[in-house]
Amino acid sequence: MSEERIVTAAMLAIGDELLSGRTKDKNIGHLADVLTVAAIDLKEVRIVADEEAAIVEAVNALRAKYDYVFTSGGIGPTHDDITADAISVAFGVECLHDEDAMALLGDMYKRRDVPFTEARQRMARMPAGARHIANPVSVAPGFNIGNVYVMAGVPSVFQAMLEGLIPTLAAGTKTISQMVVSPFGEGDIGLPLAEIQKAHPLTSIGSYPKFDGKRFSTEIVIRSRDEHMLSQATAAVDTMLLEVAARKEQEKSDNKS
Amino acid sequence: MSEERIVTAAMLAIGDELLSGRTKDKNIGHLADVLTVAAIDLKEVRIVADEEAAIVEAVNALRAKYDYVFTSGGIGPTHDDITADAISVAFGVECLHDEDAMALLGDMYKRRDVPFTEARQRMARMPAGARHIANPVSVAPGFNIGNVYVMAGVPSVFQAMLEGLIPTLAAGTKTISQMVVSPFGEGDIGLPLAEIQKAHPLTSIGSYPKFDGKRFSTEIVIRSRDEHMLSQATAAVDTMLLEVAARKEQEKSDNKS
Repeated sequence: MSEERIVTAAMLAIGDELLSGRTKDKNIGHLADVLTVAAIDLKEVRIVADEEAAIVEAVNALRAKYDYVFTSGGIGPTHDDITADAISVAFGVECLHDEDAMALLGDMYKRRDVPFTEARQRMARMPAGARHIANPVSVAPGFNIGNVYVMAGVPSVFQAMLEGLIPTLAAGTKTISQMVVSPFGEGDIGLPLAEIQKAHPLTSIGSYPKFDGKRFSTEIVIRSRDEHMLSQATAAVDTMLLEVAARKEQEKSDNKS
Repeated sequence: MSEERIVTAAMLAIGDELLSGRTKDKNIGHLADVLTVAAIDLKEVRIVADEEAAIVEAVNALRAKYDYVFTSGGIGPTHDDITADAISVAFGVECLHDEDAMALLGDMYKRRDVPFTEARQRMARMPAGARHIANPVSVAPGFNIGNVYVMAGVPSVFQAMLEGLIPTLAAGTKTISQMVVSPFGEGDIGLPLAEIQKAHPLTSIGSYPKFDGKRFSTEIVIRSRDEHMLSQATAAVDTMLLEVAARKEQEKSDNKS
């Protein structure tokens, strides 16, 4: 469809703790959910360690390839929080203590009667020219430079930052979906389902096996940006399942007789 | 240390459902845990869609860069299971119905009196020359070619395949770790902690903020392949925390007087 608009995104999750298993990531699945609702296609995710070269390489590869890049992690006050530095290197700009961020943080710590230490001041560092991403949870802002959006790794902060950010982004044509539950396993429906996919190229048909410990069943998800195509493909899947059911009944009665 | 041996790995999780948010990945965190115990360093994770070009590009980038690559997903019987084809393309070899896998699956379906359909036969496809990875849960094998290990996406199957695989892999020098819980937030300890990291380059010191809704605290994890280095750095962290505590006590009594 020529009016169809596709907006793509990637995520880069940053942190040794995700790769050692110490922390189980919760931001990838959340971002995936939010972007699906926002009609932005998440196309790729990477997780890298707190290593400048790894972050720079990943962010440069992803920002060249997708409309938006969202990062999580590495913007706290300690020595292993190097995301601001790495993003600055990736964009070839200086990493500076942002004046507005210094004021925001300075005010907050003053109100709380907590010393605004050199470590805490690190949280005001961002690439020159970056814009803030508001942090309604713990004040220290994320930032946006080019098509890269840098957010905190702590899930409650990541989620709050993302919530404010999403309405400011361009969205694509919404993808709509239908799920059909097949009582038959993928081995029974794989071939006719492949034919349905072939006959409905403007839909994307996913097949997800379920196993309850005794029997396989299948969740079939049909997705499309076009409502008419979606309902046509869904009807084809329904018809196919009835045909498989009829065939199995026939086989059963053949075996009995 | 010259006797130190480092073995690296990457993971490639394959599946549209991980990027749409429909399925929340459980394999990455599990692999991270298992590799940490096995003394194999997980350095990078990627998640890509069920698209041949995306899989080929990712697997070729990762297998050139790391000792091992583990993949999850896309080896079932339906049209969207294209991992075997994509890995074959990545290695420039044919994707064939493996004879041993055909026999394994054929026997199993015969015993269960289930037709060995063309769709089910798809699960026997793998790159020419690949070796099986045993599947004690649902029989259909994963496979290994070069330094790439291709496993199922269903977590119970992924875990069972991995369990059998791990003892066959070369391991590195084990990394040991210590955790010290700091009652102080990162802003209070960030600077002295950075100095400790600098003074102990053969350790890796991670700092993980905790927030209970009222106060920040910090979990400090010191990791090293050398036990002596680990205990020296841990002692330095303990001493630093006592100094911070003493300073805070001093400040409190200064404020009162």
